[in-house]
Parts: sequence; C-alpha cells; structure tokens
Amino acid sequence: MSTTGGKRIALGLDFGTESVRGLLVDLKGVELGSAVAGYKHGQITRTLPSNGQKLPPGFALQHPQDWLDSSAKVVRAALKKAGRTGGDVIGIGVDFTSCTMLPALRDGTPLCMLKGFQNQMYAWPKLWKHHGAITQTKKINRLARQRKEKWLKRYGGIIGLEWFFPKVLETLEEAPQVYDATEVWLEAGDWFVWQLVGTSLPLSRSTCQAGYKAMWHAVDGYPSRQFFSALHPKLADVVSQKMPGDPLAPGRSAGELCPAMAKKLGLLSGTAVSAAVIDAHAGVPGAGVAEPSTLVMVLGTSSCHMLNSRVEKVIPGVAGVVEGGILPSYFGYETGQAAVGDAFDWLRQTTNQSFSSLDKQAAALPPGAEGVRCMDWFNGCRTPLMDGSLTGAFTGLSLNHGPQHLYRSLLEASAFGLCWIVELLRAGGVPVRRFVATGGLPHHNPLLVQIYADVLGQRIIVHPSKQGPALGAAILGVLAAGKHASGFASASTAIHAMARAKEDDPHRRAIVVRPNRAAAKTYAKLYDRYRRLADVLAKDN
Amino acid sequence: MSTTGGKRIALGLDFGTESVRGLLVDLKGVELGSAVAGYKHGQITRTLPSNGQKLPPGFALQHPQDWLDSSAKVVRAALKKAGRTGGDVIGIGVDFTSCTMLPALRDGTPLCMLKGFQNQMYAWPKLWKHHGAITQTKKINRLARQRKEKWLKRYGGIIGLEWFFPKVLETLEEAPQVYDATEVWLEAGDWFVWQLVGTSLPLSRSTCQAGYKAMWHAVDGYPSRQFFSALHPKLADVVSQKMPGDPLAPGRSAGELCPAMAKKLGLLSGTAVSAAVIDAHAGVPGAGVAEPSTLVMVLGTSSCHMLNSRVEKVIPGVAGVVEGGILPSYFGYETGQAAVGDAFDWLRQTTNQSFSSLDKQAAALPPGAEGVRCMDWFNGCRTPLMDGSLTGAFTGLSLNHGPQHLYRSLLEASAFGLCWIVELLRAGGVPVRRFVATGGLPHHNPLLVQIYADVLGQRIIVHPSKQGPALGAAILGVLAAGKHASGFASASTAIHAMARAKEDDPHRRAIVVRPNRAAAKTYAKLYDRYRRLADVLAKDN
Repeated sequence: MSTTGGKRIALGLDFGTESVRGLLVDLKGVELGSAVAGYKHGQITRTLPSNGQKLPPGFALQHPQDWLDSSAKVVRAALKKAGRTGGDVIGIGVDFTSCTMLPALRDGTPLCMLKGFQNQMYAWPKLWKHHGAITQTKKINRLARQRKEKWLKRYGGIIGLEWFFPKVLETLEEAPQVYDATEVWLEAGDWFVWQLVGTSLPLSRSTCQAGYKAMWHAVDGYPSRQFFSALHPKLADVVSQKMPGDPLAPGRSAGELCPAMAKKLGLLSGTAVSAAVIDAHAGVPGAGVAEPSTLVMVLGTSSCHMLNSRVEKVIPGVAGVVEGGILPSYFGYETGQAAVGDAFDWLRQTTNQSFSSLDKQAAALPPGAEGVRCMDWFNGCRTPLMDGSLTGAFTGLSLNHGPQHLYRSLLEASAFGLCWIVELLRAGGVPVRRFVATGGLPHHNPLLVQIYADVLGQRIIVHPSKQGPALGAAILGVLAAGKHASGFASASTAIHAMARAKEDDPHRRAIVVRPNRAAAKTYAKLYDRYRRLADVLAKDN
Repeated sequence: MSTTGGKRIALGLDFGTESVRGLLVDLKGVELGSAVAGYKHGQITRTLPSNGQKLPPGFALQHPQDWLDSSAKVVRAALKKAGRTGGDVIGIGVDFTSCTMLPALRDGTPLCMLKGFQNQMYAWPKLWKHHGAITQTKKINRLARQRKEKWLKRYGGIIGLEWFFPKVLETLEEAPQVYDATEVWLEAGDWFVWQLVGTSLPLSRSTCQAGYKAMWHAVDGYPSRQFFSALHPKLADVVSQKMPGDPLAPGRSAGELCPAMAKKLGLLSGTAVSAAVIDAHAGVPGAGVAEPSTLVMVLGTSSCHMLNSRVEKVIPGVAGVVEGGILPSYFGYETGQAAVGDAFDWLRQTTNQSFSSLDKQAAALPPGAEGVRCMDWFNGCRTPLMDGSLTGAFTGLSLNHGPQHLYRSLLEASAFGLCWIVELLRAGGVPVRRFVATGGLPHHNPLLVQIYADVLGQRIIVHPSKQGPALGAAILGVLAAGKHASGFASASTAIHAMARAKEDDPHRRAIVVRPNRAAAKTYAKLYDRYRRLADVLAKDN
C-alpha cells in the first residue's frame, strides 16, 4: 500500500436498514465524495427471495449478497465523485445495524447461500428488527434471573428481543438442522469485515457488537457453559464450537483488505480495515468526541445517548457497559429513549398540523406548556425502565389547551427523560460533563435543543455533520491504519482533527445552545413532577 | 280566566344565556308554536351599557329590560304561529339560568335601573357564569368548614363560585353602597315570576333555585344568622332583612298574571303562573319523567344528571339534595359532569378532524379504544370530587394510536364518570332504576349513548324532544293552573300525558338503546381502571 502526504483519505461504510452509504474524507475530515445504494432485496419481511415462501409475522431478514453488491457500488461511485483512486485510501471502517446476524460456514459462506439451505428461512441473516424470538427472550431472561447471572446486571436486569442469543436459540428451537449445520454464528458487521480481510480463522469480532448485543465482557467473556447448557443442552458449547473469533475494539485493525474484495470494491489490497462498530456508536467519533464524560446524543426517530468513561460501573437501568465498546481503552455506556422523532411525528399526525406551525406556537409558550404534562413512553421506556410495554400519556389537560401545548409538553417530556438518564449515570458514579447532539433532529428542531439545554441546565453543542456514523466509521479506518500511515499520534488527535466541531471553525461550525437560567429553574420543579408521573404510570401499567 | 276543553294550552318560557324561548303546547304536549329572541345586550362581559365603563375580567352581567322585552316578543310570535290567543293559555311556567341574580327594591325595580346606580357595575344582575367572587367563595367555604356547618354536607362539602351568597358577599365587599341600597336580593327567575304576578310582597322564591344555589333547606332554612354574622357583620340579617319571600316548589302556583304584564305579553290577566325552576331542572318534567328513581341525563356542553327520590340522603360528593327542588313532594338530586360536549369539541379541534370522521372511526374500534384511557376532567370534576382545578388526561398512548382512539377513550371516560355518579347514588341509599337521556347530544351522537348503555349495563331511553326545558316549563304552568283548569288529577298524570316518550308513540317516539352484554363485561374491568386513574390524578393535582 502506498500513499503520499496530502492525498491520504479514509473510507467509511455505513450499513443501514435499507441502504449502505460510502463516505470518503481526507484526514481533516473534509468530505470528498459519498454515495448511497439501496439493497436489492431491501428488508425481507413477506416472502423468501429463493422460493417465494411466506414469512411469519415479525420476520425481518436480509440478503448477504446485497451487502457485497451495494457496497461495491457506493465505493466506486464515491471514488469517482471524489476524483480519487483506491490507492489514496489508507483505512476502511465499517459500521452496521445490530444485532443483524447470520449463520455461516467456517469459510465465511452464509448458510442461506447453500443450495441445501436457501429455501430454509431460518438459514437467512436476521435483521436487527426481526421479532421472531419472543419466547426465547423470555426463557433467557427467566433463566438468568433464576441463576442470578452476574452479567444480567450489566444490562439493567433484562436482555432484549433483538439481541444475539435469542436469535440463535430461536433457530435452534425452530430449525435444529440449521443450527447443526452452522459452523460460525456472527454479526453481519463482523461478517462483512471478515469478508474484507479474507475469511481465515480466527476472525475478529467487534467488542461493540459482542458487548452490547451478545452479553460479552472483557474479563468475564460470554455467559458460562453452565448457563447455555441449562438453556438448551445443544447450546452448551455454542461459544467454543460455533463462535470462533477474537474480540477487537472498533478502531483496532482487523487485518488488511484481501485481493478478492479489493478487486470487487475498486480498492488496493493491503488497505487497513478496522473492527466493525454498531451504526449508532460510530456516531461518537463521528461527532468528534474522543474524551470521556461527554454524552453524545444521537437524536432521530429514537435516541441513543452514548458516553465513554474511565470507570466501569454497573448501574440498574443502563442497558450496556462495554469495555472498548465504542472506542479502545474506555468503558462505553449506551442508553436510549425509544420514541423521540417518532413521537413528535405521531403528534403532528394526530393533531393534523405541520411541524412549522407546531414549532412556532410551542416556542411562544412558557416552560411547562401552561400545565400540560407528558410521558414520552409512546414506544415503551428504554433507559432506565427497560420496558417496551410502557405507554405514553398527557395529563393536566383543559379546554383552553391546543395542539401546541401537547407538542411542547412532549418536547419537555423528552428532555426530562434525557435528564433522568444523566442523573442515573451521575448517581451511579459515571461523570457526565459535556453534551454533544447529532443525528437528524437537532438540525431541524432548535426548540428541542433549547429545551434540552434548559432542562439539563447545561450547554449543548450541536454537531453540524449530517452523516456522523459514516464519518465515525472512516475515522475508525484511519485509526486502524495506525500512526505511521495517518500521522496521528493518538485516537483523540485523529478524532479531533477529523470531526470535532468548534464555534470558530468555518468548515465545521458548532452551534452552541446555552441554557436559560429562569427556564432551568422552572424545569427543575417540573422534572420532579415528571418523575412522580413516571412512578405512577409504571405502577398502573 | 275562561278556557274551553280542547283549546287549552300552556306557555313555557325558557330563559337561556343568550336568548329566551317561548313554547306553546296543548295538553297532550304537542307543540303549537314557538319562538326565540336574543337579548339586546346579550351577555355583558366587556363594558357597562350605561356609560361604557370597562368591566374587570370574569364579569358577566345581564340587562333586566332584555328579559322583559324579549319574552314579550316570543310570546306574541308563538301565539301568532300557533294561531291562538292569550285566552287559550291556562298556565305559564318559567325556567331560568341560575344562579343569575340581582339586587332590587321592594317594589321590584332592579337597582341598575335607578339613575343613581346605573353606572355602578355591582348594581347590575350577575349572570350565572359571572366569576367575580373567587375570594368570597373561598371565605365562605373556609368559614363553613371551620364552623362545621351542617348544610355544607348537603353540597358535597364545598359550595360553588357561581352560587348566590358568594355574589351577595362580593357586592357587599366591593360596593357596600350597593349592598346598603338593596332591599331585595333574588334570583332572576324569581324576579321574572314576581314581575308576572305583580310585585307585591312576600314574593315567591323557587325551592329549586334556593335549594341548589342558596343553601336553603326545607326544614333548616338558610344558613344561620351566626354564620352570616361571622362571615361579615353587615351580612348578619341578610335573610330576614333583604330576602323576603316564601319558598315554593316548581309547579306550585306563584299567583296570577297581573294586568300590566298580561298587556305586555299579549296574555290574559289572571292566568296561573308557576314558581320558577332552573333551566336544566325543567328538563325532568320536559322528559316526561314524574316518577322517582329515574335519572334524567341532560347531555350538552356539560351534563346535568337529575333524579327525584322519596328518600333524603346526604351523600358526599353529591352537590345538592333539595326537597321539592325539581318537582313537588320529592327530594331532588342534582349531579353533573363539567365537560361533555365541550370536551368532545375540544378533541375535534385539537385533532383537526370532523365529528363525522371521528364518530365513524371510533365506532369501528373495540371497547377500551385499544388501550387508550382518558380522564374526562377537561373542565374540572363536578360530581363527585367538586374540584374545578382537576384536569383531563390520556394514558396508554402508543405510536399506533390515532385521533379516533383519543375520541373513543374520551366518550368512554364520560360514560365512566356517569357510572361513578350512579354508583355513588346507589351506594348512598338512593335507588336509580331507569335512565332517560335528553339535551342536544344524544340525538347527534348515537355512539355516545350506546357506550353509556354498555358502561351502565342498562338500557337508556332517548327522549325525542329538542326543547325539553321549555316543555318542562309549560308543564309546570299546567300544574300551577290546577286540576280544575287542566283536568289532570296529578302531577305525574300531566307529565306523562304531555311529555312521556314511548317506543310505540308516533308523536313522541322513544329511542331505546340497549346494552351489549359483551361490551358491558369489558367495561366493568375498564371502569375499575378509570377509578384507579382518578385516584392517582386527583392526588397528583
């Protein structure tokens, strides 16, 4: 691999639910070219592509060939737009939806690509949102509680329907022949990285995906053989026999691009490839955040609030603490709110208004929405109650309230939900000092960010990037390339150089939203009421 | 007065907030002619008609001359439409908004008609909705609680801002010269009847208005001199010195039409005049209900549920039990829900939908509105909590709910609120056996009536009359005329003949709505949840 000073660039591949984005940036983080390509088969939710077989409700699969074909398209298109060649790329980073996972052979072949299994729906990759493992999730949670499994605490006392082992157990119970034929169970992000570096063993597994979705811990590893054995006799040795691989933090090198994939993507073999990362988590380096104690709030249809810290604390209600889960050398904390933009859009539809009208009228109301209070659990409560069955509410309604009161109270409830998470982390001994907002929402909704700042009583830096995860992935590619290739002495130097927003940076100007002291005072009282309402509604559920 | 058999008719005068309605019916209750006339000055809420003086917020006054002039118009117009003369009218009934009240001289002259007082806003009649007596209401309630006044229990432990003595005390405190000059404090309904029969003393006072709005009791009378004296030294003898009059139940004769008013109205002097009645309460005879234990539900922007009973029980939360309050010889119970049609309209506006669309979509939903629950306190809770500061709520909301879910849950909450009232009466020892719905809503909203029937688990008779109070007033006029003039042997014979709806009566066909057993079963569980939600929200207020 040869690169020269100013020409060095990095590639971020951001695998979403419907499409993959390829982004090329230079080592200052300036975007040179990007492209997006949908997956030929999209989300497979109705019929199996091989034989048209109808899928049960809750099924959501993907086609592994789509990941390969669409990424080849976007890399070539981005290079063309940037006017560059593959030789300029010093590192590749991959972020992926998670837990999207699949059964494969030891040579990397997905089981669904074999003639004998192509018509077997359980052999296909399960998309993160696949909801086939309801009974299996209950079984795992029940057993873990009975056995007082230590790892359960790290996930707030409950593991999720969309995670790794529920999907494995679902396959074992529903299609044992698929489980038997599987040689390697792995995340799609890890599979793609494995494809990139050549499918030799042991493969590299992202600590991010393993830690947040497969109950892996840096010291304790996966759950014990005894646990798996009690869950299902055939599952006893799933880790040792069907999950080969070495845990590797995002930003560590998983290897070099192999000739076959280099050819397919139009890149040079030997290019550094980073271990994979979950898409949302890539938003942390993508927002220029390298230091501990900064909460990166990725605000979209739902919200994911992530934080790196030097301390490892088990906090009830915080879904995941993973060493090296977001960046090497830190404990990564993941928290979230299940309905944010989704809930705002629900309100817009339910009141038959436009956002511009709601925003304008709600902004004219005082803090507290003239008495209307809201509980933002329109899609359950993720952090801290971890209960998808919880529901939203409005109280304090009277005949003189209008849609704008409902809307403002919803924004405020969303802010109170965030405030609860921050209090929880701090009370658990994890410092939270700075706040960076990214994702689609903060750019469109300045009122929301102001209310967040007022409720937290802290300033919020809105990061200007609109493709944070892809930029984060590219930065991880740079880290994987190493100091020699990139010239960056440390991860934080690279992240700051390539993504940090500043108020005085014309290329990447941070919008800093400062709290209003009077509003903050009002909100402190309203926050207590929100918490009381949460108690009441959680009990009434 | 001379009348002949088939020609005998009755006049009902129904004084509303904006207009008066005159209705002429024969002794079968068939409508012969009716007319409506607005008040020249309408509701006086901004400036005083005499000098344009600006009124404080919360003020709502009326002009007594409007009542005289508009009633003359409607009586003449109704006679013309009916092709009848005043000589055919055997009795006149008057229903009026309440507590609409005024200060007058002993000759019946309203104080505001005097040159010396016309520019003094406190000398004008206060409309029922006048909200100037906030501090006075608090003072009365506080003192009554301190002194453990026995009468307070009959009103559920609290008296209302819109009642009689708060308005008197407001005048005394704010304009003592008006109080001093007042010779007679009285309800507008009583004042109008006094005008009709000639303004000699003692005047007749409706037991309905006195009992429901002025803390009067058939045995105990008004609150004691000691109470009034403790409230304000100058108020000590308000009853003996400034409230001359004999209590008289609606349907009892207050006297005969005097020549001056006969001339003004185009009627014959000597015609029987009934004691006045509150407009809502006139709806009971107007719905053909003469017997005890039938709940008459007047459903409109708010709801008033009235019941006659043979038993007198003091029930916490039931605002008024008045002997002869609705019909002679019975104890009249008044309960209510503060926001019904008003709340439905609020929801229509807030969701920017049409009622036809909401009705259609909500009817297609199952009982329970797919998990959405509502508290119908959008204008406080009248019965049983008697707390105007309570507020409405929706809970159980998730992203798949729409306006129709909110709407159906609101209709259901309204039904649960009614069910609570019925349970309260029954638990207090007052039987409730039949249900009759009147007012504007039941005709427009069959879904509401069906939900009411399902929640109560009882059939509901929808009375076809759209002017129940005016018909009720006319019937009271017939009762006042006496057996000899009307030919009716009893009040119940008259009420049944003139207003009772029956399924097989082509003139007055009752719509009978029967409960669905399966729905009733579901609602029994949901009602328990409603009550739990009510507990929680009342505490959280």
